[in-house]
Amino acid sequence: MYNVIMDCDPGHDDAIALLLASRADNIRILGVTTVAGNSTLENVTRNARRVLDYAGVTDVDVYAGANKPLMRELYRLTGAIIHGEDGLGGPEIPEAVTPVRPEHAVEFIIRTLRECPEKVVLVPTGPLTNIAMVLTQAPDVKEKIERIVIMGGAIYDPGNVTSAAEFNIYQDPEAARIVFQSGCDIYLNTLDISMKAVFYEEDKERIRAKGGRIPTFVAELLDFFGATHVEHFGFFACPIHDALCVGVLIDENLVTWEHTYVDVSVAEELTRGETVADLWNVTGHAPNCHIARTVNRERFVEMITEHMGRSYVSKGRP
Amino acid sequence: MYNVIMDCDPGHDDAIALLLASRADNIRILGVTTVAGNSTLENVTRNARRVLDYAGVTDVDVYAGANKPLMRELYRLTGAIIHGEDGLGGPEIPEAVTPVRPEHAVEFIIRTLRECPEKVVLVPTGPLTNIAMVLTQAPDVKEKIERIVIMGGAIYDPGNVTSAAEFNIYQDPEAARIVFQSGCDIYLNTLDISMKAVFYEEDKERIRAKGGRIPTFVAELLDFFGATHVEHFGFFACPIHDALCVGVLIDENLVTWEHTYVDVSVAEELTRGETVADLWNVTGHAPNCHIARTVNRERFVEMITEHMGRSYVSKGRP
Amino acid sequence: MYNVIMDCDPGHDDAIALLLASRADNIRILGVTTVAGNSTLENVTRNARRVLDYAGVTDVDVYAGANKPLMRELYRLTGAIIHGEDGLGGPEIPEAVTPVRPEHAVEFIIRTLRECPEKVVLVPTGPLTNIAMVLTQAPDVKEKIERIVIMGGAIYDPGNVTSAAEFNIYQDPEAARIVFQSGCDIYLNTLDISMKAVFYEEDKERIRAKGGRIPTFVAELLDFFGATHVEHFGFFACPIHDALCVGVLIDENLVTWEHTYVDVSVAEELTRGETVADLWNVTGHAPNCHIARTVNRERFVEMITEHMGRSYVSKGRP
Amino acid sequence: MYNVIMDCDPGHDDAIALLLASRADNIRILGVTTVAGNSTLENVTRNARRVLDYAGVTDVDVYAGANKPLMRELYRLTGAIIHGEDGLGGPEIPEAVTPVRPEHAVEFIIRTLRECPEKVVLVPTGPLTNIAMVLTQAPDVKEKIERIVIMGGAIYDPGNVTSAAEFNIYQDPEAARIVFQSGCDIYLNTLDISMKAVFYEEDKERIRAKGGRIPTFVAELLDFFGATHVEHFGFFACPIHDALCVGVLIDENLVTWEHTYVDVSVAEELTRGETVADLWNVTGHAPNCHIARTVNRERFVEMITEHMGRSYVSKGRP
Repeated sequence: MYNVIMDCDPGHDDAIALLLASRADNIRILGVTTVAGNSTLENVTRNARRVLDYAGVTDVDVYAGANKPLMRELYRLTGAIIHGEDGLGGPEIPEAVTPVRPEHAVEFIIRTLRECPEKVVLVPTGPLTNIAMVLTQAPDVKEKIERIVIMGGAIYDPGNVTSAAEFNIYQDPEAARIVFQSGCDIYLNTLDISMKAVFYEEDKERIRAKGGRIPTFVAELLDFFGATHVEHFGFFACPIHDALCVGVLIDENLVTWEHTYVDVSVAEELTRGETVADLWNVTGHAPNCHIARTVNRERFVEMITEHMGRSYVSKGRP
Repeated sequence: MYNVIMDCDPGHDDAIALLLASRADNIRILGVTTVAGNSTLENVTRNARRVLDYAGVTDVDVYAGANKPLMRELYRLTGAIIHGEDGLGGPEIPEAVTPVRPEHAVEFIIRTLRECPEKVVLVPTGPLTNIAMVLTQAPDVKEKIERIVIMGGAIYDPGNVTSAAEFNIYQDPEAARIVFQSGCDIYLNTLDISMKAVFYEEDKERIRAKGGRIPTFVAELLDFFGATHVEHFGFFACPIHDALCVGVLIDENLVTWEHTYVDVSVAEELTRGETVADLWNVTGHAPNCHIARTVNRERFVEMITEHMGRSYVSKGRP
Repeated sequence: MYNVIMDCDPGHDDAIALLLASRADNIRILGVTTVAGNSTLENVTRNARRVLDYAGVTDVDVYAGANKPLMRELYRLTGAIIHGEDGLGGPEIPEAVTPVRPEHAVEFIIRTLRECPEKVVLVPTGPLTNIAMVLTQAPDVKEKIERIVIMGGAIYDPGNVTSAAEFNIYQDPEAARIVFQSGCDIYLNTLDISMKAVFYEEDKERIRAKGGRIPTFVAELLDFFGATHVEHFGFFACPIHDALCVGVLIDENLVTWEHTYVDVSVAEELTRGETVADLWNVTGHAPNCHIARTVNRERFVEMITEHMGRSYVSKGRP
Repeated sequence: MYNVIMDCDPGHDDAIALLLASRADNIRILGVTTVAGNSTLENVTRNARRVLDYAGVTDVDVYAGANKPLMRELYRLTGAIIHGEDGLGGPEIPEAVTPVRPEHAVEFIIRTLRECPEKVVLVPTGPLTNIAMVLTQAPDVKEKIERIVIMGGAIYDPGNVTSAAEFNIYQDPEAARIVFQSGCDIYLNTLDISMKAVFYEEDKERIRAKGGRIPTFVAELLDFFGATHVEHFGFFACPIHDALCVGVLIDENLVTWEHTYVDVSVAEELTRGETVADLWNVTGHAPNCHIARTVNRERFVEMITEHMGRSYVSKGRP
């Protein structure tokens, strides 16, 4: 059983990541924290709470975190285009009934890591602002972090904001550098694989065909989220980036990894937020990151489809 | 009456700044927070607590903060040379009896700013790591910050780590940029003036001649701290940089100011941590910082000398 | 008929590029200029002259150019490993009889561009130092440049010095930026395609089997040059990067192109020399470069093999 | 007798520098080269030729050089304000009769350095583009360079384009870095001293009172050039920056020097073109530059005044 904190900015794929985590047998969600990224902090926090309530996950609390990157203004353009103005365009779901918790995400994460009797997996699927703040403020908690499973970056393939950079890392490159230099055990799901684990029209319809509120909701999320990717691929092929970070916890054979050294470019706009892996071992640095190399698309599609048909079962406290 | 949080890394001049603040009629110290800078976090926290206890300031709590800059390793060389291995070389004072508080400096500052019925002045005299974290985690507290009075930077004169950079800003340039870009009302006491408000041999001896534990302690601090500056000036002439930040609260005519735009260089080692003021108004940015331009040395010397002869009187709570 | 100036740093693949150009029906080599890159200026100039003499190309002059990058020291490590200490490890060929010309490469290129009654194609297959100097010193010659066909950079795939950067651009990123910003019509053969147009063991042996001095020489070049690539591919698969720049002049269907905006990273070592293409059109800059996207490996192998069996025929003056 | 090449961008102070050099007993001007800086290459070349003709220096040739910085566009704003639209606002002098030479400045400098039987002093008083190109293209000529006396930079005082940077170095920081790293013996006259060697109203009028075409011309240059400085000082006080570079050749006691290591910031706009001296010896680099520390204003004023009353006497060839 993994004890997991989901640090996210829903966002369509974050929403599906939350749903997947909540339905996984081997994942106990200790809490959900939010960070400005795909949309404003206000929007993504509302979305996180709405999705959890809609999915019956009312015993998992939501904590709001950073409302902007450490040293930059929030880059809004791409997020608004991809995810809609409120960050979760498409399906209509009700407002949340369960309130967001008053504690700041960073305080919650630090407190939880310290109090949890077991190690905890951090799953950041947005900009790494909160995680960088946690590691700066409380270096003692590193020993309680089992691993950090990040959605972000692009090593072998071009990024999606600029050719050099993927959206999450581009948003807060300084936070990303802090996290990569922290000494924690990092697993990085990049665009390289998320763009290869896409859902096709028939995959989406298979989910819809399952019926019920969650499959319908997910299909509608993909209707909207996939629309913007049609142009990229020339046909419907929708990545669900963030859910891969949950997927690799459910099925350890979903993704293969390469252990290498990764640093993040911060000095010039041209390469801002680029995740540069030392593939040829020229820097002399020890590996600090497992970068995803291959993904089994069919297993991922099957995993999502199957789990979306499940009901939520609380895992209690560790 | 100013409500003040002293964020420091004692350090000889930080110690005198603490003593001065504790003896000032118009300053209520709400707490003292520490940050790695002149020495390790462990050393500077011990020193802050020791100094306060030795000065009878047992009702002001100390909270430890960041143990390293946001994105850099702590630069140790200069600090160890200037302040000695334990950060407070020279006088022998006992270990503290009052314990350091368990709450993190950042949490304390945020909580205090929120709870205090009045506005609060932040006086950071070390690297700006803690302050940057506060402003990132809790942007709402900005409206409770009356001003931030910083010791750091060098605008008109060369720096003291490199020609471009002063020690505190060099240590954590990214944190400094966050603070300068925060929108808070900033007063910057730079090397430009602290190196002009030096204590000469006769000033130091006049303090010693007052007798008593605090004047003797301060004279011994200056014996040690000033020794490393003899080379620079060719004779004894000891700056007490950090105490200027307290001094400008006690006497508003101590320093004159220029309101301008300041940013911090972060991109290359050559200019790392340089505080660049837009003196010619070429950037189009509105002023964000009052930089110190002139200082009345005699008033500063007199202020320190006179206050060191006082006893501590608690100001209670606001 | 293309009038061509070959600007190179032989180097095994440069040598084959020279041979190919000299045997092409539609290429008139106006001169060969050299630049420090794969080896020292002394070595690469000697190699250029030796190769041309050995190939019977005694009526094409060689002019030595820059002995180091504009703002950096020459990076030696990779070149020495890949090309051997003298820059052309493997086959033994005699010293040149024809002397190197005393005129500097930059002067020669400028003079030639001005004097030539027709437009000229520049084919730089080493660092872009000479070309940057030409364009800086004589902006008037741009109108005489038909195109610049560069071997350098990596857009979609990792580089070969660092993950971010290919060897030629890494050597002199500032020169590369000058060239990309010059307004000239640029064709960029990157590692993306040169690593896909490799010669296998059987391709190499087919060349050797043709017999004669040039096929034997080329096969021996590949014996040496390919050895270092065995590790990369796990079997013999030898790129002949530089010859692609000649190949695309011989056969316009050899490579397909994408017209985009390319800039070069210069600010931090992490991404030094990276060629960043604005694939998503986010910079607003007009395209300045045709980047190679696909290559027909079989045509390239066939082209090299066939041309190596030819004799040199002087094309005279334009 | 110093053999001197004046590399300039007249510009009022360049014009006076040319006049001063032409009247000095111990200076033989081998040629005048021009570079885009204070105004366009076309303007400054016209101005150089006009000034020399007007001053009777018809046996010294003018050669046009770089029309823009190596990697940047020419920054026009300040130059146009300070020097007028044509680069030499104020006095009316006739067009030149002597033609500008067709040879490029860089070629001329390289050729002259190689041919001159004696060592040569380079006096660049504009952006260092030409000099950087010379040193890159012909490293062999370094041994023929006696010294390079540069007007540029600001070490102890703020710059005049930004607080960090002086105009000449700001224009082409990359060229400046190339020159500082060249190993040549460099003397740097900075704003630190040129702003302290100003001409007051009475100094200007004393020149005018000498009568004759050159004193009148110089007084009129100062009328115009000084006008823009009134605002800075609050009264008439006109620096003649570039003439200091000639002055230090005429009178070796005019300026005192500090031997240190200087590098130029190129990575971010904030500090672009800043000349950073390693005053505290923290880089470990050996000194590469003599930076001017003090200037004898009275001697400088007297020197200019006295020389402007002289006639031109050709020094012949070395």
